[in-house]
Amino acid sequence: MAKGIGYSNIGDSVDDFMLIKDATRGVASNGKPFLTLILRDATGEIEAKLWDVSKEDETLYIPEQIIKLNGEVNQFRGKPQLKIMGIRIAQATDGVQISQFVEKAPVAKSELMEKLTEAVFEMKNPAMQRIVRAFIKKYQEALLTYPAASKNHHEYVSGLAHHIVSMLALAKEVHKLYPDVNKDLLYAGIILHDLGKLKELSGVVTTKYTIEGKLLGHIPMMVEEIGHVAKELQIEGEEVLILQHLVLSHHGKAEWGSPKPPLVREAEILHLIDLIDAKMNMLNRSLSKVKPGEFTERLFAMDNRQFYKPLFEDE
Amino acid sequence: MAKGIGYSNIGDSVDDFMLIKDATRGVASNGKPFLTLILRDATGEIEAKLWDVSKEDETLYIPEQIIKLNGEVNQFRGKPQLKIMGIRIAQATDGVQISQFVEKAPVAKSELMEKLTEAVFEMKNPAMQRIVRAFIKKYQEALLTYPAASKNHHEYVSGLAHHIVSMLALAKEVHKLYPDVNKDLLYAGIILHDLGKLKELSGVVTTKYTIEGKLLGHIPMMVEEIGHVAKELQIEGEEVLILQHLVLSHHGKAEWGSPKPPLVREAEILHLIDLIDAKMNMLNRSLSKVKPGEFTERLFAMDNRQFYKPLFEDE
Amino acid sequence: MAKGIGYSNIGDSVDDFMLIKDATRGVASNGKPFLTLILRDATGEIEAKLWDVSKEDETLYIPEQIIKLNGEVNQFRGKPQLKIMGIRIAQATDGVQISQFVEKAPVAKSELMEKLTEAVFEMKNPAMQRIVRAFIKKYQEALLTYPAASKNHHEYVSGLAHHIVSMLALAKEVHKLYPDVNKDLLYAGIILHDLGKLKELSGVVTTKYTIEGKLLGHIPMMVEEIGHVAKELQIEGEEVLILQHLVLSHHGKAEWGSPKPPLVREAEILHLIDLIDAKMNMLNRSLSKVKPGEFTERLFAMDNRQFYKPLFEDE
Amino acid sequence: MAKGIGYSNIGDSVDDFMLIKDATRGVASNGKPFLTLILRDATGEIEAKLWDVSKEDETLYIPEQIIKLNGEVNQFRGKPQLKIMGIRIAQATDGVQISQFVEKAPVAKSELMEKLTEAVFEMKNPAMQRIVRAFIKKYQEALLTYPAASKNHHEYVSGLAHHIVSMLALAKEVHKLYPDVNKDLLYAGIILHDLGKLKELSGVVTTKYTIEGKLLGHIPMMVEEIGHVAKELQIEGEEVLILQHLVLSHHGKAEWGSPKPPLVREAEILHLIDLIDAKMNMLNRSLSKVKPGEFTERLFAMDNRQFYKPLFEDE
Amino acid sequence: MAKGIGYSNIGDSVDDFMLIKDATRGVASNGKPFLTLILRDATGEIEAKLWDVSKEDETLYIPEQIIKLNGEVNQFRGKPQLKIMGIRIAQATDGVQISQFVEKAPVAKSELMEKLTEAVFEMKNPAMQRIVRAFIKKYQEALLTYPAASKNHHEYVSGLAHHIVSMLALAKEVHKLYPDVNKDLLYAGIILHDLGKLKELSGVVTTKYTIEGKLLGHIPMMVEEIGHVAKELQIEGEEVLILQHLVLSHHGKAEWGSPKPPLVREAEILHLIDLIDAKMNMLNRSLSKVKPGEFTERLFAMDNRQFYKPLFEDE
Amino acid sequence: MAKGIGYSNIGDSVDDFMLIKDATRGVASNGKPFLTLILRDATGEIEAKLWDVSKEDETLYIPEQIIKLNGEVNQFRGKPQLKIMGIRIAQATDGVQISQFVEKAPVAKSELMEKLTEAVFEMKNPAMQRIVRAFIKKYQEALLTYPAASKNHHEYVSGLAHHIVSMLALAKEVHKLYPDVNKDLLYAGIILHDLGKLKELSGVVTTKYTIEGKLLGHIPMMVEEIGHVAKELQIEGEEVLILQHLVLSHHGKAEWGSPKPPLVREAEILHLIDLIDAKMNMLNRSLSKVKPGEFTERLFAMDNRQFYKPLFEDE
Repeated sequence: MAKGIGYSNIGDSVDDFMLIKDATRGVASNGKPFLTLILRDATGEIEAKLWDVSKEDETLYIPEQIIKLNGEVNQFRGKPQLKIMGIRIAQATDGVQISQFVEKAPVAKSELMEKLTEAVFEMKNPAMQRIVRAFIKKYQEALLTYPAASKNHHEYVSGLAHHIVSMLALAKEVHKLYPDVNKDLLYAGIILHDLGKLKELSGVVTTKYTIEGKLLGHIPMMVEEIGHVAKELQIEGEEVLILQHLVLSHHGKAEWGSPKPPLVREAEILHLIDLIDAKMNMLNRSLSKVKPGEFTERLFAMDNRQFYKPLFEDE
Repeated sequence: MAKGIGYSNIGDSVDDFMLIKDATRGVASNGKPFLTLILRDATGEIEAKLWDVSKEDETLYIPEQIIKLNGEVNQFRGKPQLKIMGIRIAQATDGVQISQFVEKAPVAKSELMEKLTEAVFEMKNPAMQRIVRAFIKKYQEALLTYPAASKNHHEYVSGLAHHIVSMLALAKEVHKLYPDVNKDLLYAGIILHDLGKLKELSGVVTTKYTIEGKLLGHIPMMVEEIGHVAKELQIEGEEVLILQHLVLSHHGKAEWGSPKPPLVREAEILHLIDLIDAKMNMLNRSLSKVKPGEFTERLFAMDNRQFYKPLFEDE
Repeated sequence: MAKGIGYSNIGDSVDDFMLIKDATRGVASNGKPFLTLILRDATGEIEAKLWDVSKEDETLYIPEQIIKLNGEVNQFRGKPQLKIMGIRIAQATDGVQISQFVEKAPVAKSELMEKLTEAVFEMKNPAMQRIVRAFIKKYQEALLTYPAASKNHHEYVSGLAHHIVSMLALAKEVHKLYPDVNKDLLYAGIILHDLGKLKELSGVVTTKYTIEGKLLGHIPMMVEEIGHVAKELQIEGEEVLILQHLVLSHHGKAEWGSPKPPLVREAEILHLIDLIDAKMNMLNRSLSKVKPGEFTERLFAMDNRQFYKPLFEDE
Repeated sequence: MAKGIGYSNIGDSVDDFMLIKDATRGVASNGKPFLTLILRDATGEIEAKLWDVSKEDETLYIPEQIIKLNGEVNQFRGKPQLKIMGIRIAQATDGVQISQFVEKAPVAKSELMEKLTEAVFEMKNPAMQRIVRAFIKKYQEALLTYPAASKNHHEYVSGLAHHIVSMLALAKEVHKLYPDVNKDLLYAGIILHDLGKLKELSGVVTTKYTIEGKLLGHIPMMVEEIGHVAKELQIEGEEVLILQHLVLSHHGKAEWGSPKPPLVREAEILHLIDLIDAKMNMLNRSLSKVKPGEFTERLFAMDNRQFYKPLFEDE
Repeated sequence: MAKGIGYSNIGDSVDDFMLIKDATRGVASNGKPFLTLILRDATGEIEAKLWDVSKEDETLYIPEQIIKLNGEVNQFRGKPQLKIMGIRIAQATDGVQISQFVEKAPVAKSELMEKLTEAVFEMKNPAMQRIVRAFIKKYQEALLTYPAASKNHHEYVSGLAHHIVSMLALAKEVHKLYPDVNKDLLYAGIILHDLGKLKELSGVVTTKYTIEGKLLGHIPMMVEEIGHVAKELQIEGEEVLILQHLVLSHHGKAEWGSPKPPLVREAEILHLIDLIDAKMNMLNRSLSKVKPGEFTERLFAMDNRQFYKPLFEDE
Repeated sequence: MAKGIGYSNIGDSVDDFMLIKDATRGVASNGKPFLTLILRDATGEIEAKLWDVSKEDETLYIPEQIIKLNGEVNQFRGKPQLKIMGIRIAQATDGVQISQFVEKAPVAKSELMEKLTEAVFEMKNPAMQRIVRAFIKKYQEALLTYPAASKNHHEYVSGLAHHIVSMLALAKEVHKLYPDVNKDLLYAGIILHDLGKLKELSGVVTTKYTIEGKLLGHIPMMVEEIGHVAKELQIEGEEVLILQHLVLSHHGKAEWGSPKPPLVREAEILHLIDLIDAKMNMLNRSLSKVKPGEFTERLFAMDNRQFYKPLFEDE
């Protein structure tokens, strides 16, 4: 399993370090306690059962703990499950670190920051540029480490910045092909559209929804914050309203969380570019795990479709 | 037609002062210009055609002008139309004023203000009370004169305050029957829920949507403003978030404009009380215009239903 | 676990009497039979497994049997499950009775009857009053003991009457605030609207749907019965039709089981009051089981939402 | 225009007797009153304008009056309109009668009655047979003259009986092909399913909805009446409930007016046979008015589709 | 269990030959491998667990293998499960064959072929007749053995031909009752409408979807093939287009897989006859497995309804 | 009105040549015939009434006739209408031609052909390249002149080729940003996806739907034709199936006319690129007609939205 758990097949042997993402206690039909572990490495996750655990085991095998494990990939109710044959807690001498076990964007933080800076540098409208700069400054660290979502697409370290930077690249080309598009507005909209997630999601490693995220959601929170920031910067033109509209409408429809649909050209194009980048991210990662002639697993966020990799594609 | 145009029947004669709400120029099939007038008094509106108008007429018969008119109520394409037999511009000596021709809440401004004050006075939670007080102070004049909507329900002068005060009365009783309900929270939610309309709508007499209203809508605007006001007042507890949630969710569903559905008990009850008061307002006004044994006109905001007035109701 | 099973937490010890609501035989992976028991007390239900049962056990542990049990509340597939450590059949000498283990309305039957009688007494329209009286007389015992539903809201002994009496209280206040509302009609509609459930549901303790209930539903059955009763009482005015309409339309929409939507003012208000009382019942009971800062479990009948109890609420 | 108005083309001359179905007064742009007439003969309807009418004209040209008219078929806003060149009231000496101007089923009443009687005679289940007989006896005259609907399908004199008899013929064949189907139940369901329309619709010539029809609808009214009739006949078996279910569910879905979907085999097949006969009636009548290679007008009750008549069909 | 597994009840003993339809390896909580078998005979399927299997067992108990088994029908998570007490591989001397364990149409292939031939013989339009003959010739063997679907209706050997022949019988009667219907067109549409399934499904015994079937579906594949066949036969009239339309539209609505709804009379009637035959097939088979007074299991393809068998039906 | 009718405002004078697109006869309330003309130039269309026409006029003012006209732009029922003051038939000596009055793509045919050729030249997969070449050869003339639709987007001469070429440009950039995308497949899909419109639409100037277009639609027609062409070219690999899938699924959802949703990565991206180019075309053309601070007219194909042009945009 040199490739990592995300690429393993039923029957593969496993002998490697992994990170415990989640551990839940249960009681087996023989009355003895067991742990259901969710284990992960940098390529994916798998479930495993640890049978007949002692009280001490329950205090050792806990989330964010690294373990050394050998076993075999089996199937249970149609899903892969790791059968544990041997397990121990990782030692300081093993020289392993949590950061090895979390998925990261395929682009380095420094490069992501550089691309963001370039985009801001290209902008000519001073109001938009100042607002965008203020946000980047305020949230720089989180912006460069947060995932773009807790699951589905760009759900890895630096996923949010990776998503923004890919969208900016697309926007640049769209602007070349349709020069009527206001590039400054589109760039600003892309950089800001999902920053509300920094408050909606709880963090980088174990990403959950905050209370605020559940009760308001990232869109209204970000609309509000653009207002606050503009006020502090004493910016008052229509740029503020239009940027708020781009953020507000970027999910495209009321039933998808945007109380107003896009009513400005760049709001519409922002919504479409967001769709393309999110979908390409999901598709490329899923298709990389299957061979030509096969279908991917069901992709929940793409209407539960399974995608086919044609025979004429290189593996 | 002593009762006013809202209560007139086909065939009624009209000889009265009315206000021009809207005037559009057209060209008749004989090539001569004419004006399509929307006329109103305190009870309702009617369309009228003024044929063969001169250039001067076009400058006289304009919106917000009062006229004296005689004619007859006819029917055109299934809707009432006023056939104009005589028309003239009202004179200073006629002693009529615009305020006579606009519909007003059946409760005086002073009484509405008093009820609002009472409700605020009953509140015990200092954070909520201070926020509500700040809003009432900031918007007092507009709050007491704006309609609650440009059409459908409480679409008259002081309609917004009338809607709020009626909802507060309902809330008081609901709290008595279900004492677990947090009265302070419910009161605060009721007072704030629609204040975003003060920015969404353009004014009291000719009520239209502002650009901001069209691009953001009253709900996100108000969520933002609660945040600003709380910041200025240096209020930081969960009360701010929960109030924002009540405003955000008061339309009940994403497809009705609330990106989050009610997720707090008082948010749910606020949504239901809002529905009751809006529907009772529409129903009572429509039913007052028909006789027992008749159906009302179609009510657009109530799924286009026509309501029946049973024979055993007094007229 | 002084509070009862509905308030227990994972890890709690249990040592108490409970009622078997349901028992299903299964065969474990070791080939031995076991029983899946649904156990209840007056506060709620929990699942338990009884392993390695004998033929005799299968005849002892059956529905409506009271047992004495000790064990521990565990979690299985995300739901609480009671781990049984000791179990025995309750004896006559234990002095426990089935009525102790079923949930009951928080108001006594006598008080519910009194409130109903008061409401009927307030009615002035003789046709409506006579019809309502006839129904109360015909079904008095069942009306005072049936639940309002087999699950979701007021699903306890006397739930139907509790629901009716709460709605009458709301109606009284609504009538005060909107005096155009016909109180007699609204009262009569409230008392009759769900009486069809007395035939739709099979009984008080193990509430299931009757064949008639499945093939016709409580609404058309009740519309029919109002017709029968009015015929017997030789009542012929429009009151009969309008009462049938109120019952027919009280679910609000065709897709919710009302072939006609409310087309009379009191039908609309009846629908809304029904919604409020059902929702307040669900919300208050769910929220009473969580602490400030927590979310309730998912409420299926409220679009599967989880509700938040703000930090500023007293526990 | 030997074929009748339903078969006329733009440009055709008209010189014939017609029946006024509806007459509405309007005022033209020159200030003079005019009448919008809906005229019909046995094949269809057309709109016409009668300009510059006198007060006397308004009392002469009224609904249910026969007129003699010459004119030309024109087009107005995409729909045919009859341009009136000459018009007069029909005289006794003209020898024309209202019955000549209304559409009738293509089968005589006597034959329809005979087929109904045959079907009842074939039934073997005494409970169903007695109930059906009682309804036929109670409503014989109306049953043989009413339309099946106010528009869309079988909207002509004896349309209801024609619809029932066609469905019975289909049912007979369906039973032969699928002998498990209970023929008695299916026959009874077909005969009863739409009888509620005798109370829902106001009459044969100018068919409108009654108050009762608007507030309850033909389905719940008929469910109730089956209950009454069965009680009078002292029939108590499950046949009554199942017949009520067939009537209740024959629209197939809650959103189409059936609070319960078909849950008995014959209820499902009744729903499908109803669909087939209604659709064949609409399609055959529309297609008979177009030539091969043409599309019909839009058929509202068939999702607004236009149907194509292939070139290989005989005209 | 003389009747077969499809008619067995919980608690029945089983001592019979069965066919393994599917076998999946799992690992039990005690760490030992087991097989989940799907077993079938000519009347239905059941799941069974084979515990503690050896490596050799895993190579013996595989799909399409016949076994001899004794055991008992139990219930597991609400569904029947066969508890295996003894099992062995069938021997040549047992004299059993796969064809005994698959469900077959209740009509012999020869008779189905005869009915098809008769229908083609009745057709008079040479273009349609030649196209239909060409398809029957090209696919005769598959057409007579394929199921009509992989599940839901006519999902047995010769199911497709059985479905076609039943529909032809219905069509014959519909044509008699509504003689305007073009019988040749309707017959041709019925014979061709589902032939695309011969390419969409992988085969007769283990019926799966082909890649082509998943990416295009049987409807567009068949539209294309009618074009190819007509080209080869050098047929060019409108018959080809209309036949393609009948196939294209036979699912009735875009969301059910027909990009165009029926726009020709016979396309509409084809859709309805298809519905009737599919539903009668599902209903009759499900109802044959329950007693009067009972409901069937949920029928997924009929909106998940459970159907009731009235008490007055013979068992 | 130097800019053309598409850019005119209410009140503008018009004195120019225009093309009659449509002419319908009506009869005015004074009994005299008139013509409703739809007039166009290269920038847009407008309705006009020609009153009191003679028999000769009716033969002169017909579709595809060029006229010289002076008049004024008025408003009628909220839409612009041209008031005709003078009109005459264009003469040979006027030197005007139909091609001057139809909207054309902003890119010359030769350039469009060049870009298409370049794209084909870039393709490396021989099967796809040969199929695409065959189609371009077969339809070259029509492909370069047809509109992409009869209305909504690219509804002008060479609109289809313009749409294809814009999409190719977008695809090129998308491939650069997401190199996993199969460029050959995406290019081939883009070139072929809408070619079925060459048979679905009747022609370039007066674009209507053909019978074939109405009964099958461009998608199934094109799927079929790819099959035919591949057969003729004796190409048999999976490329044919996948290309057919791209065409079949390019509308994205069953309810939008694609019986299968995109199930191959390039099918998904083709659908998204199609959306972007169609929407940018509609938006840019509509926004070019309004000033900063204004909203466009309602765009039917974009959910009837009106788009706002921010104040900071250059006019």
